[in-house]
Amino acid sequence: MRELVLTTFDWVPEVPRGYVRDLRVRWALEEAQTPYRVEGAPFSGRDADHFAHQPFGQVPWLTDGDLSIFESGAILVHLGEQSEALMPKDLAGRREVLGWTFAALNSVEMASLPWTIFQFSGETGDAPGWKRLDAFLTARLDHLEPVLAGREWLAGGFSIADILMADVLRLVDRFDGLARHPACRAYVARAKDRPAFVKAHADQMAYFAAAD
Amino acid sequence: MRELVLTTFDWVPEVPRGYVRDLRVRWALEEAQTPYRVEGAPFSGRDADHFAHQPFGQVPWLTDGDLSIFESGAILVHLGEQSEALMPKDLAGRREVLGWTFAALNSVEMASLPWTIFQFSGETGDAPGWKRLDAFLTARLDHLEPVLAGREWLAGGFSIADILMADVLRLVDRFDGLARHPACRAYVARAKDRPAFVKAHADQMAYFAAAD
Repeated sequence: MRELVLTTFDWVPEVPRGYVRDLRVRWALEEAQTPYRVEGAPFSGRDADHFAHQPFGQVPWLTDGDLSIFESGAILVHLGEQSEALMPKDLAGRREVLGWTFAALNSVEMASLPWTIFQFSGETGDAPGWKRLDAFLTARLDHLEPVLAGREWLAGGFSIADILMADVLRLVDRFDGLARHPACRAYVARAKDRPAFVKAHADQMAYFAAAD
Repeated sequence: MRELVLTTFDWVPEVPRGYVRDLRVRWALEEAQTPYRVEGAPFSGRDADHFAHQPFGQVPWLTDGDLSIFESGAILVHLGEQSEALMPKDLAGRREVLGWTFAALNSVEMASLPWTIFQFSGETGDAPGWKRLDAFLTARLDHLEPVLAGREWLAGGFSIADILMADVLRLVDRFDGLARHPACRAYVARAKDRPAFVKAHADQMAYFAAAD
């Protein structure tokens, strides 16, 4: 029988818990009601086997039979093609989801992740560089705000694009970065209310806690 | 007959010419030897029609019959599924290309684009924030370097993943950011030597020059 194995780190420090990217895959698998097993790769001392599966030494990767898939975006597209709970079957619907999937990662997270790097290190303030990054993110949120004010989910029904976009915005929200974008904030709250997110998040927290 | 229409800005200033993202789509279409037509959306004064096709007010988007697809990553996956010049047909090969496609945009460009924002504005130097961004990009290039030292293209034959990764690295190379990563630099040079890139680049330059 086909078995899905999700590999994440065997342990991480407190700060990233609840935000490690295996969460995106757990969430998708819960939405699709697809069983899976979790394996741990050493957090300290990444070895050749790790780089063979994930060339940047990151997590997660997914093995699905003979396939090994890296990058959470690619894993979600793979899972989306197998479940209508994650992506519609018609070509127009699939393409709309695909557009928003890349938008979440290459238009919004490309602006938000550097922003959070500065937030984590406390290097915000009056420096011109920081202000430029903050303006970069704000511009993207300003465009997303009217979209999310007018619809429940990005591409018709809930899809992998929402898992990615909501997870990207959730990290911005951790630093109160959505205060001036109430529709974005309400969208994150809606997404976090889904039973599949609640289960996936609790599972990740329990997994790392058990490794302490 | 099916007609592909690529929409980009009707004009851009000198600095981004040769780097506007319609180039990624032009390049893919040249590789696949697929004819297309170019339309221009106003650079100044983006209207409701623009946002209906591209919610962030960016370019490009592609119309393919009844489909309108935004995000260059999504457009390239769409084109890749139609041409073996851009993506293999077998599932394992398609998934490897998909992983590298997301890696180019969400692992490498997420580090390189903020880095280039600082480079464009000249805000490099001793600021801790800049050093953190520079270290972020360097870490990604350090992992990419041995991969590209060992193979000609990322996922077997040339694919959409190479169009994206080479285009991402090309902008880093513009600021001499590949000086300590010779395999990455050689890869960019290899990619730029391809007739499809040469044609796509010349076409973009000519298109914007004609609008001056």
